Amino acid sequence: MKNLVGACVFAQSGGPTSVINSSAAGVFMEALQQGNITEVYGAIHGIRGVLDENFYDIRKEDEKELELLKYTPSSALGSVRYKLKDFTVDKTDYERILEVFKKYNVRYFFYNGGNDSMDTCNKISKFMKNSGWDCNVIGVPKTIDNDLYGTDHCPGYASAAKYVATTMSELALDAKVYDTGMCCIVEAMGRNAGWITASAALSNINSHSVDLIYLPEVPFDMDKFVDDVKTVLEKNNNQCIVVVSEGIKFADGKYVGEFQTSTTDLFGHAQLGGVCGLLAGVIKQRIGIKTRAIEFSLMQRCGAHLASRVDVEEACQAGREAVKAAVSGDTDKMVVYERVEGDEYKINYKLMPLELAANTEKAFPIEWIINDGTGVSKEFIDYCLPLIQGDAKAPLENGLPRFAKLKKVRVEKK
Amino acid sequence: MKNLVGACVFAQSGGPTSVINSSAAGVFMEALQQGNITEVYGAIHGIRGVLDENFYDIRKEDEKELELLKYTPSSALGSVRYKLKDFTVDKTDYERILEVFKKYNVRYFFYNGGNDSMDTCNKISKFMKNSGWDCNVIGVPKTIDNDLYGTDHCPGYASAAKYVATTMSELALDAKVYDTGMCCIVEAMGRNAGWITASAALSNINSHSVDLIYLPEVPFDMDKFVDDVKTVLEKNNNQCIVVVSEGIKFADGKYVGEFQTSTTDLFGHAQLGGVCGLLAGVIKQRIGIKTRAIEFSLMQRCGAHLASRVDVEEACQAGREAVKAAVSGDTDKMVVYERVEGDEYKINYKLMPLELAANTEKAFPIEWIINDGTGVSKEFIDYCLPLIQGDAKAPLENGLPRFAKLKKVRVEKK
Repeated sequence: MKNLVGACVFAQSGGPTSVINSSAAGVFMEALQQGNITEVYGAIHGIRGVLDENFYDIRKEDEKELELLKYTPSSALGSVRYKLKDFTVDKTDYERILEVFKKYNVRYFFYNGGNDSMDTCNKISKFMKNSGWDCNVIGVPKTIDNDLYGTDHCPGYASAAKYVATTMSELALDAKVYDTGMCCIVEAMGRNAGWITASAALSNINSHSVDLIYLPEVPFDMDKFVDDVKTVLEKNNNQCIVVVSEGIKFADGKYVGEFQTSTTDLFGHAQLGGVCGLLAGVIKQRIGIKTRAIEFSLMQRCGAHLASRVDVEEACQAGREAVKAAVSGDTDKMVVYERVEGDEYKINYKLMPLELAANTEKAFPIEWIINDGTGVSKEFIDYCLPLIQGDAKAPLENGLPRFAKLKKVRVEKK
Repeated sequence: MKNLVGACVFAQSGGPTSVINSSAAGVFMEALQQGNITEVYGAIHGIRGVLDENFYDIRKEDEKELELLKYTPSSALGSVRYKLKDFTVDKTDYERILEVFKKYNVRYFFYNGGNDSMDTCNKISKFMKNSGWDCNVIGVPKTIDNDLYGTDHCPGYASAAKYVATTMSELALDAKVYDTGMCCIVEAMGRNAGWITASAALSNINSHSVDLIYLPEVPFDMDKFVDDVKTVLEKNNNQCIVVVSEGIKFADGKYVGEFQTSTTDLFGHAQLGGVCGLLAGVIKQRIGIKTRAIEFSLMQRCGAHLASRVDVEEACQAGREAVKAAVSGDTDKMVVYERVEGDEYKINYKLMPLELAANTEKAFPIEWIINDGTGVSKEFIDYCLPLIQGDAKAPLENGLPRFAKLKKVRVEKK
């Protein structure tokens, strides 16, 4: 437990979410209040910003804009997908990071991201320890996929879930407006974990919206799928609403999405499509019913106007907790949420060793998948529902969200 | 000007919007207060409900649920696409409608829809007049396409515009998060009119979000499009955000979307895709940059959580005005919005002869299209911005929208 005095660096990594900037706001606002933190740097495009000495000087930002960051989607500092090599194999990047940390007297390092990013954070933490440079390293979790190990849920997930559930309840009303029959197939994110797709089930709480849900945790069978749709159409006035994960796989492990031929348009260019388009084609041809394929695409991860207040506040607090922990001497940890047992939803913020978070994926519990692989259980609803409560969005200016406008003053290179 | 006493029928027609039910709420709440209106019937699935004598008894509904209709997307009574023949050609349907009107003593008929629906409404109105059955017929406008003649704008358009503008401002932040280059191509609705697509330009008011906008009013040239994107990529750090209308056409009048080959997947099923997927394929192949194709699909017309308060209130009032006009003896008209000149946005509700609305399409003004067919002018912004002001959405229950739950009590057939 060392009480360090020096600069802090915060960086964002991996795919954006509706609330990754809420964590940034938490880190920045807390760091600016801490006497031991002399400078507050935002690394531009994740760890690459550190390697290239590209930093924003957060002290130059207006407090009001940092507050607006809480409600601003995407990664305000820019993101990166860059995997550090193991330092027993190649130390180049690590030595460069150490050099930069020494040059700018970086004594606090906060990395905000998912599995891969926690791996990066873990490796840097270990290297700093080995090298003898005192720097407290804390990971701040983030992923809409909700697949980080060791935390009740992940910042960003709840807002994606709220987007999916809200939108499904609207889409279901729209898709059933004619009585001529229709199968609507919606595709949600989640390459390997079904958490986001499962949240579509929440839309059945206030009124029945979704009939069939397919997660990547259950092998996908095309014939069974067609039969499932047929059964719903028969009992449901020829209407069926399906939600599938982009990551559904056949029993042999191949992604259903890979089953698309690489087709070309009349110019000879490859055409792009999603799993939902493929499945809609199958249903149209085999059942002969009108279909509609809908991809939630980036909207589900950047729809900050639909962010969950619980998510926004927790993500911000997770950032604050990271700074507080580091300043009081903690290092080599990631902030996690621990749900308190009881009727009322409440979480405690805890710390977990970084190596536990690195590269471990938390799949959707198989025992929560019901109805022969086409639905999720009440246990999931009880788990997820508290997370999507409340609204928290940017104030309107001109009738549109007024997101944070950072000055983005560059730190002069030393 | 006859003061009629009898039942009223209200029906919804064509594609749903976020606020078509706001008009229903207005019609119902006003009709229930009018002493001359003895019964309030909701025709199920538009004019087909009249032909089949399928009505809901709106007097049986709770007032609270009718109020919630204001914030409930899609057509609560069900919709239909059914085009009546000209009655000089085939009177069958009209005579049946007259028979039903007489049987149920229908003295007021309100039809809520776009161009085609106003054509239906107009034909029914004329037939009733000719047949000598006193029935006051008033059309209530509705279309996200904003292409109805004679009204400053159409109920439903503003909420679609607000969806597009808000979502584009979020998407732009997400799409630019990596510095590796990307062209994001978003497809908005509007088969023949560019109004919805143009609203993407509003997202540039609070911060620059959209680079290129293509409307169906300008012939689309693929080579020019590729050049336009290249130019933006060069000056804009290899990032480009494009919004196209689903209805863009080549100079020969053929829809760009028709340019897709009918391709099949490995099962031999036809694959479905949109214009955005096709254009993304072209850009990927010709420029070699990462692309992302995004379709706003049904969300842009049913995203009631993002409805404009102006739109919700106006659509509801349009319904009330239709009833008031009919009760005071008006018939054969459609309610229109007339914008009052001056600095502050204000509209008056007026009536226009139905035949003027029937089947006339109001295209986006060519003189508002600038930047060599890739942008829209300040005149459009000034026109559209007042329409998207304010939020108005369903109350949250379980963190999700609590939409109207109608009892839908059927009227016994006579």
